[in-house]
Amino acid sequence: MNPKHFAVLGLMIAFLLAPVAACAADAASERNRMVFQVNEDDSRKWNTVLANINNVQEELGRVEVAVVVIGPGLGMLKADALTANKVQDAMSAGVRFVACGNSMTAQKLVKDDMIDGIAYAKAGYVEIMRLQQQGWTYIRP
Amino acid sequence: MNPKHFAVLGLMIAFLLAPVAACAADAASERNRMVFQVNEDDSRKWNTVLANINNVQEELGRVEVAVVVIGPGLGMLKADALTANKVQDAMSAGVRFVACGNSMTAQKLVKDDMIDGIAYAKAGYVEIMRLQQQGWTYIRP
Amino acid sequence: MNPKHFAVLGLMIAFLLAPVAACAADAASERNRMVFQVNEDDSRKWNTVLANINNVQEELGRVEVAVVVIGPGLGMLKADALTANKVQDAMSAGVRFVACGNSMTAQKLVKDDMIDGIAYAKAGYVEIMRLQQQGWTYIRP
Repeated sequence: MNPKHFAVLGLMIAFLLAPVAACAADAASERNRMVFQVNEDDSRKWNTVLANINNVQEELGRVEVAVVVIGPGLGMLKADALTANKVQDAMSAGVRFVACGNSMTAQKLVKDDMIDGIAYAKAGYVEIMRLQQQGWTYIRP
Repeated sequence: MNPKHFAVLGLMIAFLLAPVAACAADAASERNRMVFQVNEDDSRKWNTVLANINNVQEELGRVEVAVVVIGPGLGMLKADALTANKVQDAMSAGVRFVACGNSMTAQKLVKDDMIDGIAYAKAGYVEIMRLQQQGWTYIRP
Repeated sequence: MNPKHFAVLGLMIAFLLAPVAACAADAASERNRMVFQVNEDDSRKWNTVLANINNVQEELGRVEVAVVVIGPGLGMLKADALTANKVQDAMSAGVRFVACGNSMTAQKLVKDDMIDGIAYAKAGYVEIMRLQQQGWTYIRP
Protein backbone atom coordinates (compact mmCIF):
# COMPACT_ATOMS: atom_id res chain seq x y z
CA MET A 1 0.00 0.00 0.00
CA ASN A 2 1.41 3.36 -0.93
CA PRO A 3 0.50 6.59 0.93
CA LYS A 4 -2.38 7.27 -1.46
CA HIS A 5 -3.92 3.91 -0.67
CA PHE A 6 -3.59 4.63 3.01
CA ALA A 7 -5.44 7.91 2.50
CA VAL A 8 -8.30 6.08 0.76
CA LEU A 9 -8.39 3.52 3.55
CA GLY A 10 -8.30 6.29 6.14
CA LEU A 11 -11.32 7.96 4.60
CA MET A 12 -13.20 4.69 4.51
CA ILE A 13 -12.44 4.06 8.15
CA ALA A 14 -13.43 7.60 9.11
CA PHE A 15 -16.71 6.99 7.32
CA LEU A 16 -17.15 3.81 9.33
CA LEU A 17 -16.16 5.42 12.58
CA ALA A 18 -18.86 8.09 12.57
CA PRO A 19 -21.79 5.79 13.37
CA VAL A 20 -19.62 3.62 15.60
CA ALA A 21 -18.64 6.64 17.63
CA ALA A 22 -22.25 7.80 17.80
CA CYS A 23 -23.23 4.37 18.97
CA ALA A 24 -20.49 4.16 21.56
CA ALA A 25 -21.44 7.63 22.76
CA ASP A 26 -24.99 6.40 23.08
CA ALA A 27 -23.96 3.48 25.22
CA ALA A 28 -21.62 5.66 27.22
CA SER A 29 -24.29 8.26 27.76
CA GLU A 30 -25.41 6.38 30.82
CA ARG A 31 -25.48 9.62 32.65
CA ASN A 32 -27.78 9.54 35.62
CA ARG A 33 -30.95 11.22 34.48
CA MET A 34 -34.32 10.48 36.04
CA VAL A 35 -37.74 11.71 35.09
CA PHE A 36 -40.38 11.33 37.79
CA GLN A 37 -44.08 11.41 36.88
CA VAL A 38 -46.63 12.79 39.33
CA ASN A 39 -50.35 12.28 38.65
CA GLU A 40 -51.96 12.26 42.07
CA ASP A 41 -53.76 15.01 43.94
CA ASP A 42 -52.13 13.92 47.17
CA SER A 43 -49.80 16.18 49.15
CA ARG A 44 -48.34 13.18 51.00
CA LYS A 45 -47.27 11.76 47.64
CA TRP A 46 -45.78 15.13 46.64
CA ASN A 47 -43.75 15.29 49.85
CA THR A 48 -42.60 11.72 49.40
CA VAL A 49 -41.45 12.37 45.83
CA LEU A 50 -39.58 15.49 46.92
CA ALA A 51 -37.91 13.50 49.69
CA ASN A 52 -37.04 10.71 47.24
CA ILE A 53 -35.40 13.20 44.92
CA ASN A 54 -33.41 14.60 47.82
CA ASN A 55 -32.17 11.12 48.69
CA VAL A 56 -31.27 10.39 45.10
CA GLN A 57 -29.30 13.63 44.80
CA GLU A 58 -27.47 12.96 48.06
CA GLU A 59 -26.57 9.41 47.05
CA LEU A 60 -25.49 10.12 43.49
CA GLY A 61 -24.12 13.64 43.66
CA ARG A 62 -24.28 14.01 39.89
CA VAL A 63 -27.81 13.35 38.70
CA GLU A 64 -30.24 15.26 36.54
CA VAL A 65 -33.83 15.15 37.73
CA ALA A 66 -37.02 16.24 36.01
CA VAL A 67 -40.53 15.98 37.42
CA VAL A 68 -43.40 15.93 34.94
CA VAL A 69 -46.70 16.77 36.59
CA ILE A 70 -49.94 15.68 34.94
CA GLY A 71 -53.67 15.95 35.63
CA PRO A 72 -54.67 16.03 39.30
CA GLY A 73 -50.96 16.20 40.19
CA LEU A 74 -50.85 19.85 39.09
CA GLY A 75 -51.80 21.00 42.58
CA MET A 76 -48.17 20.26 43.49
CA LEU A 77 -47.00 23.15 41.32
CA LYS A 78 -49.57 25.77 42.25
CA ALA A 79 -48.20 28.97 43.74
CA ASP A 80 -50.33 28.48 46.84
CA ALA A 81 -49.49 24.79 47.34
CA LEU A 82 -48.22 23.71 50.74
CA THR A 83 -45.34 22.11 48.85
CA ALA A 84 -44.40 25.38 47.06
CA ASN A 85 -41.38 26.07 49.27
CA LYS A 86 -40.03 22.57 48.90
CA VAL A 87 -40.55 22.69 45.15
CA GLN A 88 -38.58 25.95 45.04
CA ASP A 89 -35.82 24.39 47.14
CA ALA A 90 -35.67 21.49 44.70
CA MET A 91 -35.47 23.93 41.77
CA SER A 92 -32.55 25.65 43.49
CA ALA A 93 -30.94 22.22 43.71
CA GLY A 94 -31.30 21.82 39.94
CA VAL A 95 -34.55 19.87 39.63
CA ARG A 96 -36.67 20.82 36.63
CA PHE A 97 -40.46 20.79 37.09
CA VAL A 98 -42.67 20.54 34.02
CA ALA A 99 -46.42 21.14 34.07
CA CYS A 100 -48.66 19.47 31.47
CA GLY A 101 -50.28 22.23 29.41
CA ASN A 102 -53.28 20.13 28.42
CA SER A 103 -54.01 19.41 32.07
CA MET A 104 -53.73 23.13 32.85
CA THR A 105 -56.25 23.99 30.14
CA ALA A 106 -58.62 21.30 31.41
CA GLN A 107 -58.37 22.73 34.93
CA LYS A 108 -58.53 26.36 33.73
CA LEU A 109 -55.13 27.07 35.24
CA VAL A 110 -52.84 29.77 33.86
CA LYS A 111 -49.13 30.35 34.40
CA ASP A 112 -49.91 33.03 36.99
CA ASP A 113 -51.48 30.35 39.17
CA MET A 114 -48.27 28.35 39.18
CA ILE A 115 -44.93 28.49 40.99
CA ASP A 116 -42.48 30.86 39.27
CA GLY A 117 -39.73 29.26 37.27
CA ILE A 118 -41.34 25.94 36.40
CA ALA A 119 -41.37 24.73 32.80
CA TYR A 120 -44.34 23.89 30.60
CA ALA A 121 -44.96 21.22 27.99
CA LYS A 122 -47.98 20.91 25.73
CA ALA A 123 -48.59 17.26 26.67
CA GLY A 124 -46.85 15.85 29.73
CA TYR A 125 -46.66 12.34 28.27
CA VAL A 126 -44.99 13.63 25.11
CA GLU A 127 -42.36 15.31 27.32
CA ILE A 128 -41.84 12.02 29.14
CA MET A 129 -41.53 10.17 25.84
CA ARG A 130 -38.92 12.62 24.57
CA LEU A 131 -36.88 12.35 27.76
CA GLN A 132 -37.02 8.54 27.60
CA GLN A 133 -35.95 8.67 23.95
CA GLN A 134 -32.95 10.73 25.06
CA GLY A 135 -32.02 8.06 27.58
CA TRP A 136 -33.61 9.38 30.74
CA THR A 137 -34.78 6.75 33.22
CA TYR A 138 -38.52 6.73 33.81
CA ILE A 139 -39.70 6.57 37.40
CA ARG A 140 -43.38 6.37 38.29
CA PRO A 141 -43.68 6.70 42.08
CA MET B 1 -3.60 -2.16 -3.79
CA ASN B 2 -4.80 -3.84 -6.96
CA PRO B 3 -8.50 -4.42 -7.71
CA LYS B 4 -8.46 -7.83 -6.05
CA HIS B 5 -7.21 -6.30 -2.82
CA PHE B 6 -9.92 -3.70 -2.98
CA ALA B 7 -12.50 -6.47 -3.31
CA VAL B 8 -11.15 -8.16 -0.18
CA LEU B 9 -11.19 -4.85 1.65
CA GLY B 10 -14.73 -4.19 0.41
CA LEU B 11 -15.95 -7.49 1.80
CA MET B 12 -14.30 -6.79 5.13
CA ILE B 13 -15.92 -3.39 5.30
CA ALA B 14 -19.33 -4.80 4.34
CA PHE B 15 -18.90 -7.30 7.15
CA LEU B 16 -18.15 -4.42 9.49
CA LEU B 17 -21.01 -2.32 8.21
CA ALA B 18 -23.78 -4.78 8.97
CA PRO B 19 -23.76 -4.36 12.77
CA VAL B 20 -22.93 -0.67 12.45
CA ALA B 21 -25.95 -0.17 10.24
CA ALA B 22 -28.13 -2.15 12.62
CA CYS B 23 -26.85 -0.03 15.46
CA ALA B 24 -27.44 3.22 13.61
CA ALA B 25 -30.91 2.02 12.66
CA ASP B 26 -31.50 1.31 16.32
CA ALA B 27 -30.57 4.83 17.29
CA ALA B 28 -32.55 6.26 14.40
CA SER B 29 -35.59 4.19 15.26
CA GLU B 30 -36.69 6.92 17.59
CA ARG B 31 -40.08 6.70 16.06
CA ASN B 32 -42.78 7.91 18.38
CA ARG B 33 -44.28 4.80 19.90
CA MET B 34 -46.01 4.80 23.26
CA VAL B 35 -47.43 1.94 25.26
CA PHE B 36 -49.87 2.94 27.99
CA GLN B 37 -50.64 0.56 30.84
CA VAL B 38 -54.07 0.55 32.47
CA ASN B 39 -54.61 -1.41 35.71
CA GLU B 40 -57.39 0.42 37.49
CA ASP B 41 -61.10 -0.33 37.67
CA ASP B 42 -61.89 3.37 37.36
CA SER B 43 -63.86 4.80 34.46
CA ARG B 44 -62.54 8.30 35.17
CA LYS B 45 -59.02 6.96 34.67
CA TRP B 46 -60.09 5.26 31.43
CA ASN B 47 -61.57 8.50 30.09
CA THR B 48 -58.47 10.42 31.10
CA VAL B 49 -56.17 7.97 29.35
CA LEU B 50 -58.32 8.10 26.19
CA ALA B 51 -58.19 11.91 26.30
CA ASN B 52 -54.41 11.81 26.84
CA ILE B 53 -53.99 9.61 23.79
CA ASN B 54 -56.11 12.01 21.77
CA ASN B 55 -53.91 14.91 22.83
CA VAL B 56 -50.76 13.00 22.03
CA GLN B 57 -52.02 12.09 18.56
CA GLU B 58 -53.05 15.68 17.87
CA GLU B 59 -49.70 17.05 18.99
CA LEU B 60 -47.47 14.54 17.23
CA GLY B 61 -49.45 13.58 14.16
CA ARG B 62 -47.32 10.52 13.59
CA VAL B 63 -47.35 8.36 16.69
CA GLU B 64 -48.09 4.71 17.33
CA VAL B 65 -50.06 4.02 20.48
CA ALA B 66 -50.82 0.77 22.25
CA VAL B 67 -52.80 0.35 25.45
CA VAL B 68 -52.18 -2.79 27.49
CA VAL B 69 -54.98 -3.46 29.93
CA ILE B 70 -54.33 -5.64 32.97
CA GLY B 71 -56.27 -6.95 35.97
CA PRO B 72 -59.08 -4.70 37.21
CA GLY B 73 -58.46 -2.44 34.21
CA LEU B 74 -60.15 -4.99 31.93
CA GLY B 75 -63.52 -3.35 32.51
CA MET B 76 -62.35 -0.67 30.09
CA LEU B 77 -62.45 -3.16 27.23
CA LYS B 78 -65.73 -4.92 27.98
CA ALA B 79 -68.35 -4.73 25.25
CA ASP B 80 -70.80 -3.16 27.68
CA ALA B 81 -68.35 -0.62 29.13
CA LEU B 82 -69.40 3.04 29.14
CA THR B 83 -66.07 3.71 27.43
CA ALA B 84 -66.76 1.21 24.61
CA ASN B 85 -67.58 3.90 22.04
CA LYS B 86 -64.52 5.94 22.86
CA VAL B 87 -62.34 2.85 22.71
CA GLN B 88 -63.75 2.07 19.27
CA ASP B 89 -63.10 5.66 18.15
CA ALA B 90 -59.51 5.32 19.33
CA MET B 91 -59.16 2.04 17.44
CA SER B 92 -60.41 3.80 14.30
CA ALA B 93 -57.67 6.35 14.93
CA GLY B 94 -55.08 3.58 14.96
CA VAL B 95 -54.72 2.82 18.67
CA ARG B 96 -54.17 -0.85 19.49
CA PHE B 97 -55.78 -2.20 22.65
CA VAL B 98 -54.42 -5.39 24.18
CA ALA B 99 -56.17 -7.34 26.93
CA CYS B 100 -54.15 -9.49 29.35
CA GLY B 101 -55.23 -13.09 28.85
CA ASN B 102 -54.24 -14.19 32.35
CA SER B 103 -56.40 -11.43 33.83
CA MET B 104 -59.30 -12.54 31.63
CA THR B 105 -59.02 -16.11 32.85
CA ALA B 106 -58.88 -14.94 36.46
CA GLN B 107 -62.05 -12.89 35.91
CA LYS B 108 -63.74 -15.62 33.87
CA LEU B 109 -64.01 -13.30 30.88
CA VAL B 110 -64.10 -14.61 27.31
CA LYS B 111 -63.54 -12.81 24.03
CA ASP B 112 -67.30 -12.53 23.50
CA ASP B 113 -67.47 -10.31 26.56
CA MET B 114 -65.00 -7.87 25.07
CA ILE B 115 -65.09 -5.08 22.49
CA ASP B 116 -64.68 -6.39 18.94
CA GLY B 117 -61.32 -5.87 17.34
CA ILE B 118 -59.10 -5.63 20.39
CA ALA B 119 -55.96 -7.74 20.61
CA TYR B 120 -55.02 -10.30 23.22
CA ALA B 121 -51.75 -11.26 24.88
CA LYS B 122 -51.12 -14.16 27.21
CA ALA B 123 -49.53 -11.96 29.90
CA GLY B 124 -49.95 -8.21 29.66
CA TYR B 125 -46.59 -7.51 31.30
CA VAL B 126 -44.78 -9.74 28.80
CA GLU B 127 -46.43 -7.72 25.99
CA ILE B 128 -45.22 -4.51 27.65
CA MET B 129 -41.72 -5.92 28.01
CA ARG B 130 -41.61 -6.90 24.33
CA LEU B 131 -42.77 -3.46 23.24
CA GLN B 132 -40.18 -1.79 25.46
CA GLN B 133 -37.49 -4.09 24.05
CA GLN B 134 -38.52 -2.90 20.58
CA GLY B 135 -38.06 0.71 21.65
CA TRP B 136 -41.58 1.71 22.62
CA THR B 137 -41.84 4.29 25.38
CA TYR B 138 -43.54 3.04 28.52
CA ILE B 139 -46.18 5.27 30.06
CA ARG B 140 -47.93 4.34 33.28
CA PRO B 141 -50.73 6.90 33.83
CA MET C 1 -0.96 -5.78 -0.04
CA ASN C 2 1.79 -7.86 1.52
CA PRO C 3 1.36 -9.74 4.81
CA LYS C 4 2.62 -6.77 6.81
CA HIS C 5 -0.03 -4.55 5.32
CA PHE C 6 -2.65 -7.13 6.18
CA ALA C 7 -1.45 -7.09 9.76
CA VAL C 8 -1.82 -3.31 9.91
CA LEU C 9 -5.27 -3.56 8.39
CA GLY C 10 -6.16 -6.34 10.83
CA LEU C 11 -5.23 -4.16 13.77
CA MET C 12 -7.26 -1.27 12.43
CA ILE C 13 -10.26 -3.51 11.98
CA ALA C 14 -9.87 -5.00 15.44
CA PHE C 15 -9.80 -1.47 16.78
CA LEU C 16 -13.01 -0.78 14.89
CA LEU C 17 -14.66 -4.01 15.94
CA ALA C 18 -14.40 -3.41 19.68
CA PRO C 19 -17.12 -0.75 19.90
CA VAL C 20 -19.14 -2.41 17.15
CA ALA C 21 -19.13 -5.65 19.09
CA ALA C 22 -20.09 -3.84 22.28
CA CYS C 23 -22.89 -2.16 20.41
CA ALA C 24 -24.11 -5.38 18.84
CA ALA C 25 -23.94 -7.06 22.24
CA ASP C 26 -26.03 -4.23 23.56
CA ALA C 27 -28.71 -4.78 20.95
CA ALA C 28 -28.48 -8.53 21.36
CA SER C 29 -28.74 -8.27 25.12
CA GLU C 30 -32.48 -8.36 24.78
CA ARG C 31 -32.52 -10.90 27.49
CA ASN C 32 -35.81 -10.96 29.32
CA ARG C 33 -35.23 -9.00 32.49
CA MET C 34 -38.04 -7.27 34.33
CA VAL C 35 -37.92 -5.04 37.36
CA PHE C 36 -41.23 -4.59 39.16
CA GLN C 37 -41.76 -1.66 41.50
CA VAL C 38 -44.04 -1.99 44.53
CA ASN C 39 -45.02 1.13 46.49
CA GLU C 40 -48.40 0.29 47.98
CA ASP C 41 -49.33 -0.87 51.45
CA ASP C 42 -51.89 -3.26 49.99
CA SER C 43 -51.66 -7.03 50.42
CA ARG C 44 -54.00 -7.58 47.45
CA LYS C 45 -51.52 -5.73 45.26
CA TRP C 46 -48.66 -7.79 46.67
CA ASN C 47 -50.49 -11.03 45.89
CA THR C 48 -51.34 -9.81 42.41
CA VAL C 49 -47.72 -8.90 41.67
CA LEU C 50 -46.52 -12.28 42.94
CA ALA C 51 -49.10 -13.99 40.71
CA ASN C 52 -48.05 -11.83 37.75
CA ILE C 53 -44.43 -12.84 38.24
CA ASN C 54 -45.47 -16.48 38.37
CA ASN C 55 -47.33 -16.11 35.07
CA VAL C 56 -44.39 -14.33 33.46
CA GLN C 57 -41.98 -17.06 34.56
CA GLU C 58 -44.31 -19.79 33.30
CA GLU C 59 -44.76 -18.12 29.93
CA LEU C 60 -41.14 -17.20 29.28
CA GLY C 61 -39.20 -19.92 31.04
CA ARG C 62 -36.02 -17.88 30.94
CA VAL C 63 -36.61 -14.52 32.58
CA GLU C 64 -34.84 -12.60 35.31
CA VAL C 65 -37.14 -10.82 37.73
CA ALA C 66 -36.37 -8.24 40.40
CA VAL C 67 -38.89 -6.55 42.68
CA VAL C 68 -37.89 -3.23 44.20
CA VAL C 69 -40.03 -2.35 47.19
CA ILE C 70 -40.32 1.26 48.28
CA GLY C 71 -42.08 3.27 50.99
CA PRO C 72 -45.39 1.82 52.18
CA GLY C 73 -44.73 -1.24 50.00
CA LEU C 74 -42.14 -2.46 52.52
CA GLY C 75 -44.83 -4.34 54.43
CA MET C 76 -44.62 -6.94 51.66
CA LEU C 77 -41.12 -7.91 52.76
CA LYS C 78 -41.59 -7.97 56.52
CA ALA C 79 -40.86 -11.29 58.21
CA ASP C 80 -44.38 -11.35 59.66
CA ALA C 81 -46.16 -10.40 56.41
CA LEU C 82 -48.98 -12.63 55.23
CA THR C 83 -47.13 -12.74 51.91
CA ALA C 84 -43.87 -13.94 53.51
CA ASN C 85 -44.29 -17.54 52.34
CA LYS C 86 -45.10 -16.53 48.78
CA VAL C 87 -42.15 -14.15 48.72
CA GLN C 88 -39.89 -16.98 49.86
CA ASP C 89 -41.33 -19.25 47.17
CA ALA C 90 -40.61 -16.58 44.58
CA MET C 91 -37.03 -16.24 45.89
CA SER C 92 -36.63 -20.00 45.50
CA ALA C 93 -37.80 -19.54 41.92
CA GLY C 94 -35.03 -16.98 41.36
CA VAL C 95 -36.81 -13.70 41.98
CA ARG C 96 -34.67 -11.04 43.68
CA PHE C 97 -36.41 -8.77 46.18
CA VAL C 98 -34.78 -5.44 47.04
CA ALA C 99 -35.90 -3.24 49.93
CA CYS C 100 -35.32 0.52 49.80
CA GLY C 101 -32.95 1.43 52.64
CA ASN C 102 -34.16 5.01 52.90
CA SER C 103 -37.72 3.79 53.32
CA MET C 104 -36.58 1.37 56.02
CA THR C 105 -34.87 4.15 57.95
CA ALA C 106 -37.98 6.34 57.66
CA GLN C 107 -40.10 3.49 59.03
CA LYS C 108 -37.54 2.54 61.67
CA LEU C 109 -37.25 -0.95 60.21
CA VAL C 110 -34.08 -3.02 60.55
CA LYS C 111 -32.94 -6.10 58.63
CA ASP C 112 -34.12 -8.35 61.47
CA ASP C 113 -37.67 -7.20 60.78
CA MET C 114 -37.46 -8.38 57.20
CA ILE C 115 -37.68 -11.71 55.37
CA ASP C 116 -34.34 -13.54 55.31
CA GLY C 117 -32.44 -13.47 52.07
CA ILE C 118 -33.81 -10.29 50.52
CA ALA C 119 -31.43 -7.67 49.15
CA TYR C 120 -31.07 -4.03 50.18
CA ALA C 121 -30.38 -0.86 48.25
CA LYS C 122 -29.73 2.58 49.66
CA ALA C 123 -32.38 4.24 47.48
CA GLY C 124 -34.89 2.04 45.69
CA TYR C 125 -35.21 4.45 42.76
CA VAL C 126 -31.46 4.47 42.21
CA GLU C 127 -31.57 0.66 42.06
CA ILE C 128 -34.37 0.89 39.48
CA MET C 129 -32.40 3.43 37.46
CA ARG C 130 -29.33 1.21 37.44
CA LEU C 131 -31.32 -1.81 36.33
CA GLN C 132 -32.97 0.21 33.55
CA GLN C 133 -29.55 1.49 32.47
CA GLN C 134 -28.46 -2.15 32.19
CA GLY C 135 -31.40 -2.90 29.93
CA TRP C 136 -33.95 -4.25 32.37
CA THR C 137 -37.58 -3.56 31.50
CA TYR C 138 -39.39 -1.37 34.00
CA ILE C 139 -42.82 -2.52 35.12
CA ARG C 140 -44.94 -0.45 37.47
CA PRO C 141 -48.00 -2.55 38.40
